[in-house]
Amino acid sequence: MYDLIILGGGPAGYNAAERAGHAGLKTLVIEERALGGVCLNEGCIPTKTLLYSAKIYDYAKHGEDYGVKFGSATIDHAFVVGRKNKVVKQLVSGVGAKLKKAKVEVVNATAAIKERSSEGFVVTAGDKEYTGKQLLICTGSSPALPPIDGLADSLKSGFALTNREVLDLEKLPASIVIVGGGVIGLEMASYFNSVGTKVYVVEMMDHIAGAVDREISKLLQKEYAARGVEFILGAKVTSVKDGAVSYEKDGKSVSLPCDYALVSIGRRPRTAGLGCENLGLKLERGAIVTDEYGKTNVPGVWAAGDVNGKSMLAHTAYREGEVCINNILGKKDRINYNSIPSVIYTNPEVASVGETSESIKEKGLDASVETVTLKYSGRYIAENEHGNGIVKIITDNKHHNIIGLHMIGSYASEIIYGAAMMVETEMRVADIQKLVFPHPTVCEVIREAMFMD
Amino acid sequence: MYDLIILGGGPAGYNAAERAGHAGLKTLVIEERALGGVCLNEGCIPTKTLLYSAKIYDYAKHGEDYGVKFGSATIDHAFVVGRKNKVVKQLVSGVGAKLKKAKVEVVNATAAIKERSSEGFVVTAGDKEYTGKQLLICTGSSPALPPIDGLADSLKSGFALTNREVLDLEKLPASIVIVGGGVIGLEMASYFNSVGTKVYVVEMMDHIAGAVDREISKLLQKEYAARGVEFILGAKVTSVKDGAVSYEKDGKSVSLPCDYALVSIGRRPRTAGLGCENLGLKLERGAIVTDEYGKTNVPGVWAAGDVNGKSMLAHTAYREGEVCINNILGKKDRINYNSIPSVIYTNPEVASVGETSESIKEKGLDASVETVTLKYSGRYIAENEHGNGIVKIITDNKHHNIIGLHMIGSYASEIIYGAAMMVETEMRVADIQKLVFPHPTVCEVIREAMFMD
Repeated sequence: MYDLIILGGGPAGYNAAERAGHAGLKTLVIEERALGGVCLNEGCIPTKTLLYSAKIYDYAKHGEDYGVKFGSATIDHAFVVGRKNKVVKQLVSGVGAKLKKAKVEVVNATAAIKERSSEGFVVTAGDKEYTGKQLLICTGSSPALPPIDGLADSLKSGFALTNREVLDLEKLPASIVIVGGGVIGLEMASYFNSVGTKVYVVEMMDHIAGAVDREISKLLQKEYAARGVEFILGAKVTSVKDGAVSYEKDGKSVSLPCDYALVSIGRRPRTAGLGCENLGLKLERGAIVTDEYGKTNVPGVWAAGDVNGKSMLAHTAYREGEVCINNILGKKDRINYNSIPSVIYTNPEVASVGETSESIKEKGLDASVETVTLKYSGRYIAENEHGNGIVKIITDNKHHNIIGLHMIGSYASEIIYGAAMMVETEMRVADIQKLVFPHPTVCEVIREAMFMD
Repeated sequence: MYDLIILGGGPAGYNAAERAGHAGLKTLVIEERALGGVCLNEGCIPTKTLLYSAKIYDYAKHGEDYGVKFGSATIDHAFVVGRKNKVVKQLVSGVGAKLKKAKVEVVNATAAIKERSSEGFVVTAGDKEYTGKQLLICTGSSPALPPIDGLADSLKSGFALTNREVLDLEKLPASIVIVGGGVIGLEMASYFNSVGTKVYVVEMMDHIAGAVDREISKLLQKEYAARGVEFILGAKVTSVKDGAVSYEKDGKSVSLPCDYALVSIGRRPRTAGLGCENLGLKLERGAIVTDEYGKTNVPGVWAAGDVNGKSMLAHTAYREGEVCINNILGKKDRINYNSIPSVIYTNPEVASVGETSESIKEKGLDASVETVTLKYSGRYIAENEHGNGIVKIITDNKHHNIIGLHMIGSYASEIIYGAAMMVETEMRVADIQKLVFPHPTVCEVIREAMFMD
C-alpha cells in the first residue's frame, strides 16, 4: 500500500516522486523504459549533446573569422553518439540516485490501471498489483504518426525514423528529409546541416517553428537556408516509401529521394492501453483532462506532463508534477502557463516567453512591440561576425509591464528565464530600467530596449 | 550655454548624455580620447574580443572530447588584435551615432573646470570655454601605478604594460608576469594561457579575484593552475626592471624573468588636473564624493562612474549616469549597490551578485549558504566533459529571500542578471520555486537549489 503511485518516470514523474518522497509520502514510480523519460533518453538531453559537438565543429569552420586557423576538422559521428549514450547513462543514474535518496520505490514494468478498490487505486505492473491512495499519471507522449502512405512499413524497415531512432544512427546519412519543422525537426536539421548531411525540411504550415514569433522564425529559416537547408513550406507529405518522401505543394507532386526520413510532426499523449476507462477518467483527444491544480475528474487521480496535452515541455512537466504534489500535500498551488519559456537549441538559439506579435493581435490585446537588434550589445558584436540576432519585447500599453519576450541569438536559452521572471512577476518597464545588467553581455540589450520608444 | 556639460564620454558619460539629450537637455560631452572610454577602447570590449578568439582556440584543443578532430589549430594573434580594433571602431562609431541622434554635442579635447560663474559652470577644453547650468563629471579611472622600483622606466621602455598597451601587443610573448590577480589580471591571464604564453600571476593577497566568493575563486585558481598558470600569492612585488619582476614572499626574494610585465593592481579615479579645487569639490582618496543620487557637495555638480571610486564597473557607471540625469530632470532616483552583478570572463566564467559566504560573516547576517554542483544540469553535463562548476546561493534566514548568488561555470555571465533581479526584488525561495526555468539549461540549477535543505 502506497500513499502515491506515479505512472511514468519522466520529468513530471521523477521530479514529483522526489518531492513526494522528501515530503514523507510512501511513493512508488512505475516506468516501463529508463528513468528520465523521453526528455532524458531520446529528447532534450541527447539532442543537446549532439548539438554541442556540432557547435564545436561549426567553430572550426568559422574560426578563421576570429583568427583561429584549423587544419582539417572532422566530426566522428559514431563517437558523438557514443558520448551521447554516456551522458544519458550518467544522468539516468543520477535520477535513480535522487529517487533512492528520497526513499522512492521504482518498478521497471509496463503499468496499467486495473480498478478503484476500497483501499485505493489498483495498478498492475508485470505480474504484480500495487495499490495507492492517490494516483499521479505521467505517462508522457509518443511521436504522432499519421496514416501516411508507406510510413508504417518505412518505420519498420528503418527508412523512416522518429526522434528515438534518429539519435542512434551509426553513420551519417548523405541526405535526410525532415517531415515537420517544429522544435525537434529544427534541432535535428541543425545537427545534420552542421555535420554535412543534405537536409530538407518539409512543413505543412507556411512557416517553421510553430507558435514562435513569426519575424524570429523567418530569421531562423533564412539563417539555415543560407547554410544549405532546403525548406519546403505549405507542403503536404503524401508518402514515405521506396527511399523517398513525396509531397504535394501548390498542386504539384514532388518526390525527394533521401537516405532517411525523420518524422517529427508533433507528439500525442500516451493514454492508450493505460486503462483510463477503468476509472472513468475524462480524456479529450487522447489527453487526460486536468485543471490548473493537476486534478483530473476523478478525485485522488492527478496527471502531469505531456499526458495532459497542454504544453508538451519537460520544464512544464516538472512544475505540473510539483503542483500536483503540493496539492496532494494540502498546500494549494497552481501553474501559470503564461510565463513558461521555450527554447529551440539551434545555432543561433531561439527563446520565447509570453505573448507574441501574433498572439496580441489574435487576442486583441492593447500592447506594443519593440524590436531591438542584438548589435546594441558589444559582446554580441565581439562574438558574432555575421550575426543578425534580435530581441522583441511585448509590453502592455496600460500597465507598461512586460507580457512577452522573444530572442534569436547567442545565449538566448540561458537568458530567457529572466524574461520569464519579468512576465511572471508583471515587472514594468520602469522597474527594469532601474535594474543593473552586467556589461558586456547579450542580455543587457533587454535593458537597452526599455529606453526606446 | 548648455543645460548640461558632461566631462568624459565613457559608459557613465555617453549613456547619461544620450538620456539627457532624449529628455531635451542641451548637452555637451567633452572627451579627450575616443568615445566609449576605457571600457570600450581598452577594457571590457577588447578583452572580450580577444577572449572569444581564445575560446574558439580552446575548443580546438578539447574538441576531441566531443568527437571533433582538428588538424593543427593555430591562432593568429595579429589578426585577433586587428579584429579587436575593428570591433572597437564599430562600437565607438555606434556611440557617436547614438549621441548624434540624441542631439548631443561632442568636443574632442582635454577638459578642465575653470570656475563657477553667475551663469553656471565654466569648463575649458582646447582653447575654448564652455558654460553649463549643470555639470556631470564622468572622467573615469586610470591604472594604479605605485612607486615600485623600476616600474616608471619599464612603462616607458615597454617592458611593463597596463591594460591599454597589453591589448595591442603585435606578437605573442613567450612569457608574461601579471602583477595583480583581479578581474583584469585574470582575464588577460586566461587569454595568454589559452594562446600558449607562459603566465605568472603575482598577487599580494592570499587569494585571487578580490571580493569574489572564496570557494569560487579557489576553483578558478585550481582550474587555471591545472592549465599551467603559476599563481604566486601573498607576494609583494619589489621591482619591475631589467626584464624581470621581483617579489618577496615568506621572507624570500625571487626574480621572475619574463618578456613582459602587466601591471593590473587596481584603478584610481581620474581627478588630477581636472580643477575640482576651483569649485571646492569634496574628494576622498582622489575620488569625488557622491551620494546615492549622484550629487556632489556642490549643488549642480554631479559625478558618475569610476571617478566616484565606488564600484568601478561599466554597468554601474551606466546606471549612476542615469540616476544623475533623472535627478537633474527632477525625477527622484537612487542606485542600489547591493544588487549589482559582476563577471569575470575567464573560461569557465565567474559571476556574482550580492552577499558572499565571507560578507555575511563579516556583517553578522543571519543567512544560509547553499552550494550546488552544476552537474545537476543535464546541459552542463552534455557540454562539459571535465566541469566542476557550482552555484552558491545566500538566503536570508528570516525572510527566506535571496541576498546573494555566485557561479562558476558556463553561461554564468548571461545568467547572473536574473539573479540580480532576485536580489533587487527581494524574491523569496518560495517565489522562485514557482517559476518555470527552461530545460535543459545551466540556469535551472538555481531553481533546483531552491528545493534543497
